[in-house]
Order: sequence, then C-alpha cells, then structure tokens
Amino acid sequence: MNENIQNLLRDQRLQDRIVTEETAAAWIKDGMTLGLSGFTRAGDAKAVPSALVERAKNEHLKVNVYTGASLGSDIDRIMADAGIIHKRLPFQADGTMRKKINEGDMYFIDQHLSHTAEFLRNDVLSSIDFAIVEAVSITEDGLIVPSTSVGNSSIFVERAESVIVELNLAQPQAFEGLHDIYELNKQGERQPIPLMNVDDRMGSIGIPVDSKKIKGIVVTNQPDSPSPITPPDEETAVMANHLIDFLKKENELGRLPDNLAPLQSGIGTVANAVFHGLLDSGFTDLEVYSEVLQDAVFDLLDAGKVRFASGCSITLSQSKLDEVFSNLERYKDRLVLRPQEISNHPEVIRRLGLISINTALEADIYGNVNSTHIQGTKMMNGIGGSGDFARNSRLAIFVTKSIAKNGDISSIVPFVPHVDHTEHDVDVLVTEQGYADLRGLAPKERVPVIIENCAHPLYREQLYTYFEEACEKGGQTPHVLEKALSWHTGFSENGTMRQPVLEQS
Amino acid sequence: MNENIQNLLRDQRLQDRIVTEETAAAWIKDGMTLGLSGFTRAGDAKAVPSALVERAKNEHLKVNVYTGASLGSDIDRIMADAGIIHKRLPFQADGTMRKKINEGDMYFIDQHLSHTAEFLRNDVLSSIDFAIVEAVSITEDGLIVPSTSVGNSSIFVERAESVIVELNLAQPQAFEGLHDIYELNKQGERQPIPLMNVDDRMGSIGIPVDSKKIKGIVVTNQPDSPSPITPPDEETAVMANHLIDFLKKENELGRLPDNLAPLQSGIGTVANAVFHGLLDSGFTDLEVYSEVLQDAVFDLLDAGKVRFASGCSITLSQSKLDEVFSNLERYKDRLVLRPQEISNHPEVIRRLGLISINTALEADIYGNVNSTHIQGTKMMNGIGGSGDFARNSRLAIFVTKSIAKNGDISSIVPFVPHVDHTEHDVDVLVTEQGYADLRGLAPKERVPVIIENCAHPLYREQLYTYFEEACEKGGQTPHVLEKALSWHTGFSENGTMRQPVLEQS
Repeated sequence: MNENIQNLLRDQRLQDRIVTEETAAAWIKDGMTLGLSGFTRAGDAKAVPSALVERAKNEHLKVNVYTGASLGSDIDRIMADAGIIHKRLPFQADGTMRKKINEGDMYFIDQHLSHTAEFLRNDVLSSIDFAIVEAVSITEDGLIVPSTSVGNSSIFVERAESVIVELNLAQPQAFEGLHDIYELNKQGERQPIPLMNVDDRMGSIGIPVDSKKIKGIVVTNQPDSPSPITPPDEETAVMANHLIDFLKKENELGRLPDNLAPLQSGIGTVANAVFHGLLDSGFTDLEVYSEVLQDAVFDLLDAGKVRFASGCSITLSQSKLDEVFSNLERYKDRLVLRPQEISNHPEVIRRLGLISINTALEADIYGNVNSTHIQGTKMMNGIGGSGDFARNSRLAIFVTKSIAKNGDISSIVPFVPHVDHTEHDVDVLVTEQGYADLRGLAPKERVPVIIENCAHPLYREQLYTYFEEACEKGGQTPHVLEKALSWHTGFSENGTMRQPVLEQS
Repeated sequence: MNENIQNLLRDQRLQDRIVTEETAAAWIKDGMTLGLSGFTRAGDAKAVPSALVERAKNEHLKVNVYTGASLGSDIDRIMADAGIIHKRLPFQADGTMRKKINEGDMYFIDQHLSHTAEFLRNDVLSSIDFAIVEAVSITEDGLIVPSTSVGNSSIFVERAESVIVELNLAQPQAFEGLHDIYELNKQGERQPIPLMNVDDRMGSIGIPVDSKKIKGIVVTNQPDSPSPITPPDEETAVMANHLIDFLKKENELGRLPDNLAPLQSGIGTVANAVFHGLLDSGFTDLEVYSEVLQDAVFDLLDAGKVRFASGCSITLSQSKLDEVFSNLERYKDRLVLRPQEISNHPEVIRRLGLISINTALEADIYGNVNSTHIQGTKMMNGIGGSGDFARNSRLAIFVTKSIAKNGDISSIVPFVPHVDHTEHDVDVLVTEQGYADLRGLAPKERVPVIIENCAHPLYREQLYTYFEEACEKGGQTPHVLEKALSWHTGFSENGTMRQPVLEQS
C-alpha cells in the first residue's frame, strides 16, 4: 500500500480490506437494496455502481437504489440505461432516469429528503444490504470521513448489513474536519437536537461504524461532476431584486433583523441567482442553513456577506470548484456539512426560523405550488427538501419565471394539476414580474395579488376571466371545475395555454 | 365582592377591575382585532362576544376574530349571523359561519393550528387589540388560569394591547393545576422545547401577564357547550378494527413497541370512534399527545389503557362532561393541557414520533388528501391541526368512510379537487373497507392497494378504468386531465359520481 493511501486509511484494522471495484460489485446480488452516498452530484459513490453496470451487461440484475439526492458522474444515467434499478428514492435529476421513470420502466418514490432516515430507522423501507459511500479518509479510530456531501451516508452506514467505502484520492483531503455527523436515536428515545445556531457542532467529524461491517474499501481517483448551473441572467437578476425588495421591506417593518434569518435555497440556476443577488443587497452577517451549497454561497462567503454556511453537500460549477477546493482552508471555520436529516430537520428549521427559497414549476391563483410534475403527470426531478423547508420555515418563498416556452406556458394557472406545497405552506411567490406576499390573506384576497404581481401580462386578463367566472359559483376557493385544468389540456392540444380572444359580437 | 369570587380572583391588584360584559364590549372599536380563547367548543370566551353581538344590532361594527379553533356556545354562529366579522382564523366548524364564508360575506384563513402563534410573534398578522380569554381563576401572583382549553390564549395575552378575562364560575375550579403554559421566544432566539415525554411539565400553571394590561374582568357562569359527537356506529367500529389490525401488524413486525407510540386523533365522530376501538385492542400503557381530548380518551383513561394524555383542550359530550368534570381529581396526575403551539409543534411531533389519525373528506388513487373543501371549492371546517401532525408524525393515518350520500359520492376519487395533504405526507388510508399502507410504494404501486382496500366495491371498476386509461398516457402519476375532475362535475350535474355502464355493442 502506498504511503498516500496509508495516510488516508489510518485504521489499522482495515488495511487488508482493499479490493477492486469489480470484486466489490460482485458481492451485490439481484434483488438487493443499496444505499449510495451522493447529494446533487456531490460525493457520490462512483466506482462500484459503474462496475455494477458493467457486470449487468452479462446477467439479469435489479436492485433498489437509495441515495441522498441526485447523483453525478453519470451514475444515475448509466444505471437507468442499464435497467438495473427496480426502485429509486428519494430524488433524482437525470434526463435518462426521468424518461425511464415516466415510461414506467422503474419505480421512483419522491420523498421529503429528511424522511428517508426515519423510514429506514423505523424499518419501513426494504433494509439496506450494502451501503456504498465515498470518503476522503478513514480515521485511526475508524470514523468514515465523507467527501463533498454527507447526504444519507450516516444512516445508510448505520442500517446496512455491510459497508463498502470508496476512498477517493481525487477529493481534497482538507474536507476532513468539515463534517459534523450527529446521529439521532429512535423516535420516542430521542433528546432535543442541540443546535441553536447555524455554526453549532454537536457530533463527530466522521461516520462511526462497527469496523466488522466494512466488507471492502475501493480506492478511486475521480473528481465530482461539476454542477451544470448557468450564471444569473437578466431575468433571474430581476427576480433576485424582487426578492431582496421583499426582504428589505420586512426588515424595515421590523419583522426581520438586519442580518435577516438563516437562509435556505433550493438547487438550480434560479435559486442560485437569487442568492447571488444578495451580493449587492446591503445585508451583511448573513447565515446559510441549507442543503446544497452552490456557487453563490461561496461568492457571498468571499465577499464577507455570509458569516457561516451549513449544508449537507457542496455542488459547484467547474471553475468555482477548482477555486474553492484548492483553497478549502480559507472556508474551514465558516463551513459545516451535516447529514441531510439534520440540514432538513423540521425541529431545527422551525427553531431557527429559516427563510426558505425554493423553485416552483407553477403555482395557482390561490398559492398552491407544483414543484415536480410536468402537466401534472410526468416527474421532473422531485420535491427534494423543499417540503421539509417550506413546511416548517419562517418564510416559505417560491420562485419561478412567469412564463415558459416563449410564453406558451404560464407558470401562474387557475389550478395546478399536482400539488407539492399547499396554500397553507406558501408565504411568498416571486417571478420576474414581482412578488406576492400571501401571508394573512384569505384565498380570494390572494388572487389579485398573485395576478398583478406574479403573472405575466400576457395571461393576466385570462386569469381574471377564470376567477370571475369561478366567483359566480361561490365558495372559499372558487373554481370552475369543468375548466380548472383546461389550460393544461389546452397546452397539450394546441401547444399553448393562451386562449383565443373571443370576437365581440 | 362575594367570597367565592375572591377565592378565584386572588391577585389583589385586580379586584377593582370587575366590569359587566356590556362595559367590556363597549371598549371594542370598529376595525379592531380580537383574540378569543376557545378550542373546539371548549373554554371559549362567551359573555363579551355575545354582548358585542348585541351592541352591533345598533351600529356598524366589523372586527377580525382570531381563536384557538372552533368556538362553542353559539358564539361563531351569532357573530357570523350578525355580520360583525371581517376576517376569521384559524379554524371554524359552525354551519352558519360556513355559509357566510362560502357566500363571500367574511374572509376565512384556514391555517395550520401551530402557525398562528408564530405569525403573531413575527408581526405578520394584524396585531391584537383585545385578548378575551376565559379563566377559572387568577392566582395571587397574577397568572391567568385557563379553563377547558388553552388554545392560543397565551400568545393572545402576550401579544394583545389589552386583556379582558372572563372568570367563569361554571367551570370546575379543579382545572387549576392541570395546565402547563410554556412560552417560546422568537425564532432564532429559542432553546429546544424540553419535552421528551408526553407527561413532561416545563411551564407554569397559568398565563403570565403584565397586570396593567388587564383592562377588565367579567364574571360569568355558563358551562361549555357539549360536543355534538355521536357514539361509534357499526361502520366506524369496523374502521377502528382495520386501524387496530394495522397497528397490531406493525407491532408484530417490530416496528412499534407494545405500547405503540403517542397517539394523536383529530376531532369528530370518526376519529373518536377509532380511538374508542382501542378499548378492546389489547394495547396498554398507551399515551396520547393530541390537541382535543374527546370522550374516548377518558374511556381509555378509565379503563387503564391510556396512562397519560396531553392535549390543548377537553371537548366532551354532555354525559361524559358531567362525569369527568365532577371527578376531575381522578385524572389530575394523568392529564395536562398545553398551548396549541406546543400540542401541535413539529419539533415535539417528530421527536416523539406520533401516530396521527385524522379525518379526510376524500383521497385520490395516489394518496393525496382533501380535508377541507367540498367539491374543491366550499369550505367545510378547516385543516385544523391535521397538517401539523401529518407533516411531522411517524405515521400519518387518514380515515374516511368510502362512500357518502348513499353511495352517490365515492371518497376515493381519481383526483382530489383540493389538496391539504400531499402524497408525500400520507402513510396509511383507512375506510370501512380496510386499510392501505402506502409507505415505500411509488405512486402507481399505491393505486391497486388503495382501490382494493379502501374504495367501495361500487366504485372499484370505475377507478380501475380511469387508472388504465391514465397509464396509457404514462408518467410518474398518470392522469387523464380531461377526465380527472369528471367525478366531481358529474356529481354536480347528475347527483352521483357513478357512471353509467357502457352498453356492450
């Protein structure tokens, strides 16, 4: 064993467990359930899943795959393409996998990201045969130190029959010390989570494991895939400004202090752009308590705008990744990575009073949000952590562009064909048109606020026409059920949600 | 002042504040916001709201009314009838008020019951001019001891400009000592809630208040209205048995201990009947951590099946009320009443791992639940605490009869026209037909489980026909959007959801 590996694999009891990925993959049997590290392209197990896909070229093999969130390194794509997945949870974001899910070739459970650990602890899901987790090191006393994400790795290791570690030489060794692994007892036998501030540390720097459970260690050398995030554009910058205007107003009204409240932001270009907008906002001493830390968080750390960031993974574009990973020491006392059960835990979210910012596919005129299902039926990515946050945060903010497909789709509709976040859980909607503050408004009061501030002018009259007709029928939440989904069926039939203007008689 | 009143009003500073309800009502001005005690007919402010309604006969008067939940003593009805309410939150259950809401004569915000306190603390709702709270006593040091409910009274008193206390001689004095008033700091300045067991006490026996804020004390003598709950019938008994079969199976599988986990049950006849079924279940040492404690909880306490019950109100039928209230000492060490923010707090619900049982109006074939809106538009009562519990519990169980209106309505439908609980938050559905355990199932897997176990045989084929047609279109959650709401529009048009069997050609 070369010296470098000895420095990383410091537990003497484990030094004879190094195997090739092919050997490790051969241990996996048809019908097994795997728990893979990886959260939005960061810190995923890379070598063993790839070897498994290779193996499956010559034999029938179906496994259940549980992860933190989406995987990078094309792992989700090649597993889906190989047809080896029976059931997958709790989140994915890969085009090929999406297609397989929507064609019915594999099952997908779209689960709140804080829930998977509880389901496993309560023995409700198939038990995990192999946890396969990426690490930057294993300490002298056997702690598995994760790499760029923690995700569900600690619960997978705890619950799995056997553990395979992918020791990835390509991940910065400086990640050691960045994690805070806190494990919860069973429900009913649990103490309060002792986290009162975003920078509180309460656990260990690595995942504790009975060393006998480690069946193999595979040495790898492959960086994470970079995030495909695109830089803020004019429209997302405008959205960010609306959001910041809202936060400024809350501050002026005395509802939020000068450093706001700990911020959470969902993944993707829009959420990143909104965060990016805080650079020029005048707010300082900000805190982030989120799941994925994207480019903008590091820009804000660099600019001294954010004093501390807590997450469960770091997912960066290639250029930002190169910069951050080669200067990790710079961030070390301002950064912590936790299990996703803790980053997304209702107890902590409610206690800290997070401001949560997540992306909607569409919202209806009463404030119900669809985050997952295109046309109400086809899975896009999944609810991710948005439910964990929106359900328990101080401020549940949803952002979306007001139109899509050159205006043929309105993101503000009479009735969403799938609900991920109910009107009870949506406080503020933001589009490039403006923001709608729905708090303290009854459903019918929300309608003009949403139409005027969030809907695209192309669709405002059409939305009012629907609402007026609905109001004639009465009710707390008026609808014309015969026409409620007509915008979506209209889009299917005619390629647009725009309705022809009736000719005047 | 007579001796009896002196015994109840023990704070010497307050003895000159006694006024008539007419005097107190005269302080209330048009446009004010009132915070009234009262949670599902228990412990409501009775005299001052009635006097206000009287006063409004001669003048224009509109106020916002915030409560714990629904009020008894016809207060909701007479206020609605008098047209004095501009906006009401967070829950109601009165026929007249419902009609006014659905006709657009007053605004209603249907709010998670744990959220109202946070909204007030964060200054998001109109601030409260008068808190009007019922009490059984005011202690020597000025604590306001609530009566049969705590509800939102403590936050109303904390946030109100002025407080009016209704000292109700008709409520049992033995309630003193039964409450545990724990108040939370602002989000971000808050410690963990130190509640690890349902019987933990962490606060005071009454509501602390700056005595200068108490503007008046009205002496009243009017019992709570009894609950209109009906005894379990054959159908609800069958539902209870299905639920208990499920719990027994969970216990056999080792997922739940012999004393299960703390139980929560929603209000109403069905939920009460399900709880009642536990009397003959063999489970003992049960614990209740709920909002309303109904008849069945006291039956279970009497039978020694429940060792401790925590709630935020006690709402009983007349006969049970007579029995319990004249023997309160018997329950005193097995009972606690807390603010609804604590009884419904996500932190506590998740930590204890509650089994939550709530009533659905209808559910769809994928497990989305409508709890509030008849035909998707008309408010029934409100979401109440069901969202607080379902979102954070260990087991979110929803119960409903499979059909209504003699079979013309199916409670299992292709698509619910209003979503209060998304597919992510619904674990188990129970009807008199059986139970459907949805955990660990992808949407398409859930469909046959729901149809076979929960739908009425009258509708099973019709549901399968919809599902099969939907599957031809594909997707994670297949639908035929053109027909998704056809069961509801069909009911409006034809008075039934049953579709004519197509004649064979």
